[in-house]
Amino acid sequence: MSSSPQFSIYSASVPVFRQILNSLSAILAKAEAHVEAKKIDPAALLQYRLYPDMLPFTRQIQIAADFAKGAGARLAGQDVPPYEDTEKTFADLQQRIAKTLAFLDSLPQSEIENSAGRAITTGSGEKTKHFDGQTYLLHYALPHFYFHATTAYDILRHNGIEIGKKDFIGTY
Amino acid sequence: MSSSPQFSIYSASVPVFRQILNSLSAILAKAEAHVEAKKIDPAALLQYRLYPDMLPFTRQIQIAADFAKGAGARLAGQDVPPYEDTEKTFADLQQRIAKTLAFLDSLPQSEIENSAGRAITTGSGEKTKHFDGQTYLLHYALPHFYFHATTAYDILRHNGIEIGKKDFIGTY
Repeated sequence: MSSSPQFSIYSASVPVFRQILNSLSAILAKAEAHVEAKKIDPAALLQYRLYPDMLPFTRQIQIAADFAKGAGARLAGQDVPPYEDTEKTFADLQQRIAKTLAFLDSLPQSEIENSAGRAITTGSGEKTKHFDGQTYLLHYALPHFYFHATTAYDILRHNGIEIGKKDFIGTY
Repeated sequence: MSSSPQFSIYSASVPVFRQILNSLSAILAKAEAHVEAKKIDPAALLQYRLYPDMLPFTRQIQIAADFAKGAGARLAGQDVPPYEDTEKTFADLQQRIAKTLAFLDSLPQSEIENSAGRAITTGSGEKTKHFDGQTYLLHYALPHFYFHATTAYDILRHNGIEIGKKDFIGTY
């Protein structure tokens, strides 16, 4: 169909990360409002784990954001900017998401459109992985991104925050 | 780059659903083995919810599989085959996943490749939604699919099943 929108690796990456990061930001705002209304120690949520050897909520948000940042940078052929994991509050996590969104917006779409075959390397030493851009995005970065984003949601839901799937899907 | 693999709506859909559905099948096998080894009532996991008004494990698997089936069918321009939600055991859920994988394998790749601009409708009545194929896949079907697949994983993890993120990412 000549009227079809172009299906592209850019459309499958940056706008998707943007959608779910914006959802996480909205969910964080609801969690913070809940904590304030109930006079709960914010750390009770921020450090909550669904199981003792799982990562706490704050790390889930940091890692989700990092998969978005890493995928955007690598697909654009740029070095991945390191962000320190120093967030201690809901406001800090909001800033982390905002910084990640601004970074994604800064990436040249034309470079990402050319990235399906781009050689991409992640990790180092024994953990080095080699991908082409398409495999990296679809089978590695997006599954990891959704895994951490959903687990962040599930941690809040398990703790009684009044959010629903619509908050996770967000707007697009 | 002339050597780039083609980035296509087929590659962003069926092989991705296949990857994560296969992961869920492997995770189900580990959960069933755990239940047998510990002599736990399987329903303790199959009906477990992370919060009273969340859906239980069995429904998370059914719905994840249904988003894969629905996305595959709609992108291929086919009616979505209804599957009854009658699963009661781990073996039943394995069959549900196997049936879904076989359905995805049956879909004509060429039809899906043409689907970025295909008009897609989901739901009925007040819940009717209209999409083009690309928006439907990237911003609706895949987020919902990952949401339910990850929540199924989180339910098992929260209950001490020895699985890790590698089991979720699986092979691709």
